[in-house]
Amino acid sequence: MDYKGRLKRLQDGLESAKLDAFLVTHLPNIYYLCGFSGSAGLLLVTHSKSVFMTDGRYDEQANAEVQGPRIVISRKAPFLTAARSAKSNFSRKSRVRLGIESEHLPVAQKTRLQELLGSQFRLREAPPLVEQLRIVKDKEEIQRLREAATVGSGLLDTALKIIRPGVKEVEVAAEMEHTARRSGAQQMSFSTIIASGPRSALPHGRATEAQIPANGFVVCDFGVILTGYCSDMTRTCYVGHPGAEERRAYEAVREGQAAAVQAVRPGVSVAQIDRAARMSLKNNGLDRFFTHSTGHGVGIEIHEAPRVARGVTDILRPGMVITIEPGVYVPGRFGIRIEDMVVVTEQGYEVLTPAGKELISI
Amino acid sequence: MDYKGRLKRLQDGLESAKLDAFLVTHLPNIYYLCGFSGSAGLLLVTHSKSVFMTDGRYDEQANAEVQGPRIVISRKAPFLTAARSAKSNFSRKSRVRLGIESEHLPVAQKTRLQELLGSQFRLREAPPLVEQLRIVKDKEEIQRLREAATVGSGLLDTALKIIRPGVKEVEVAAEMEHTARRSGAQQMSFSTIIASGPRSALPHGRATEAQIPANGFVVCDFGVILTGYCSDMTRTCYVGHPGAEERRAYEAVREGQAAAVQAVRPGVSVAQIDRAARMSLKNNGLDRFFTHSTGHGVGIEIHEAPRVARGVTDILRPGMVITIEPGVYVPGRFGIRIEDMVVVTEQGYEVLTPAGKELISI
Repeated sequence: MDYKGRLKRLQDGLESAKLDAFLVTHLPNIYYLCGFSGSAGLLLVTHSKSVFMTDGRYDEQANAEVQGPRIVISRKAPFLTAARSAKSNFSRKSRVRLGIESEHLPVAQKTRLQELLGSQFRLREAPPLVEQLRIVKDKEEIQRLREAATVGSGLLDTALKIIRPGVKEVEVAAEMEHTARRSGAQQMSFSTIIASGPRSALPHGRATEAQIPANGFVVCDFGVILTGYCSDMTRTCYVGHPGAEERRAYEAVREGQAAAVQAVRPGVSVAQIDRAARMSLKNNGLDRFFTHSTGHGVGIEIHEAPRVARGVTDILRPGMVITIEPGVYVPGRFGIRIEDMVVVTEQGYEVLTPAGKELISI
Repeated sequence: MDYKGRLKRLQDGLESAKLDAFLVTHLPNIYYLCGFSGSAGLLLVTHSKSVFMTDGRYDEQANAEVQGPRIVISRKAPFLTAARSAKSNFSRKSRVRLGIESEHLPVAQKTRLQELLGSQFRLREAPPLVEQLRIVKDKEEIQRLREAATVGSGLLDTALKIIRPGVKEVEVAAEMEHTARRSGAQQMSFSTIIASGPRSALPHGRATEAQIPANGFVVCDFGVILTGYCSDMTRTCYVGHPGAEERRAYEAVREGQAAAVQAVRPGVSVAQIDRAARMSLKNNGLDRFFTHSTGHGVGIEIHEAPRVARGVTDILRPGMVITIEPGVYVPGRFGIRIEDMVVVTEQGYEVLTPAGKELISI
């Protein structure tokens, strides 16, 4: 991974953000910038230097993983170490503007940090500088996302083999997760959603002890983390024989999803992608049942920038990877969702999720 | 669950915290207070009222789960809904002291909230009021933790069946997670640690593609979430024939762990529990290899108050549930950790983790 280039780009951005230094506390951002995958650490970045700090538990791991920054292992609380490092670095400067990740750093930690740093340091609520870098994936990241999407997609075969009337939703999830691990996944990227029968109308219906009924949709929404990158996909199958209304609704979601995917190309706003899905569903009279946004960025985190939703002004650029996942939810009756991961290319788009989207009846 | 009593105790605590209202944003705290298990919601609590707010995705789930607070489903951003609710509730009060969960609420969200609320509202960094309630578990919670510990402990049998030279660490984790799901667990309570051979010296050695060597310790640290409550346990087995030094180190950890467990009773500080483990290891000349704290509270979250560590002043009370997990880590060579969940009783303690602790050679 191009850790050096990423750190350089962050450092180049400090000037225009009017910062002397930036304290990275959000772990996915630390992973992105230097490769550390543990659960405790801080990264202090100045215009010319970077220091990664963690505690004794991560001594070996930090030395094995971290590329670029100087590594400091300390027995002290991490903020204390960071404050000392910052003070010694800026010992000759009377006023230091230190950016914090205000979307992540809890209020109490900011207060603590300010106390440790004293009045020499002014904490500034910085824009999401690292997230803005992460929004466009490089070739190696796209390759990892492609592999995650492929392994993730393989779990659908497992699901379709197991989904039968009377089987518990959690049993389906269990077998999928087992396949994931056996395929090399580090873990699932979120709690597997298996929502059957009337539960399919719950957009976030995690697998429960409920048994799959003899007739109805089953929404399967799942993903894996493979070499640090997340996959995310949804397919909806039908157990039994779908009626005409259910078939029509399924086809409408499939059309809406395809319309949004086909709208993807550089220069288009994410709001336009959302609108493409919504207009297609409107043509089929189902837009009022589409109650969430169309998608989200995906990468090191399962949900990252940009949100693909009404009113969001982000413009698509080559290398962005987003999900496109419209759905229709008729409360108490049924729900349908279809989701792919899509990468923005120079010319348009490429779908990373290899599975088909025709309605599968079981 | 006694949601009514919990909410009442929180409301009773507002007065002494000098708050007119308290905004609960930390999801495990919301789950504790009203039963909502979804991933987006806010709970506003005043001296006499409570309102739970979420968005359309969680309409059905909120109505099925939330007990106590009035439920508001909104298309608006949750903070906007919360601000409106707070303003209408306090329309006649010129200055409102609103407590926020400063250990959890990000700086940027506080800023946004203050803008929405205007100068009538003063945001106060409140103490962890809900965490202080959660620290002592009631009977129903202890029963859930006991069941989680029992199901969790069952995964050790799976591990011991699979651990053999040449098997990958992740394969062990995969089978354990499969057993967990089949036993009714919602998910693992954290990334399963399977650290074999020299990797056992990494206190946080998540399962990797590494193969289990022909000779060496294997640290297995794992847990499940069952009906909303976490289990956490560690056992260390040996593949091959342990040498005298390794046997001695194992027995020293076992003694240290037992010493700490036996020190548990109401009125004792958590620092004393930590000291009991450390002194025992010191008697065996191994305390310098014990590089982390002795344990932590466990409940709805895998890590909650109190930390069982040097310098922490919390006093044990009946109903607290903590882990006791000393370890010895000789860098580059081997590591050993043994961990149980322990509940503080009126008389002393009860170990919730049923598995034995003698050294198992495979």
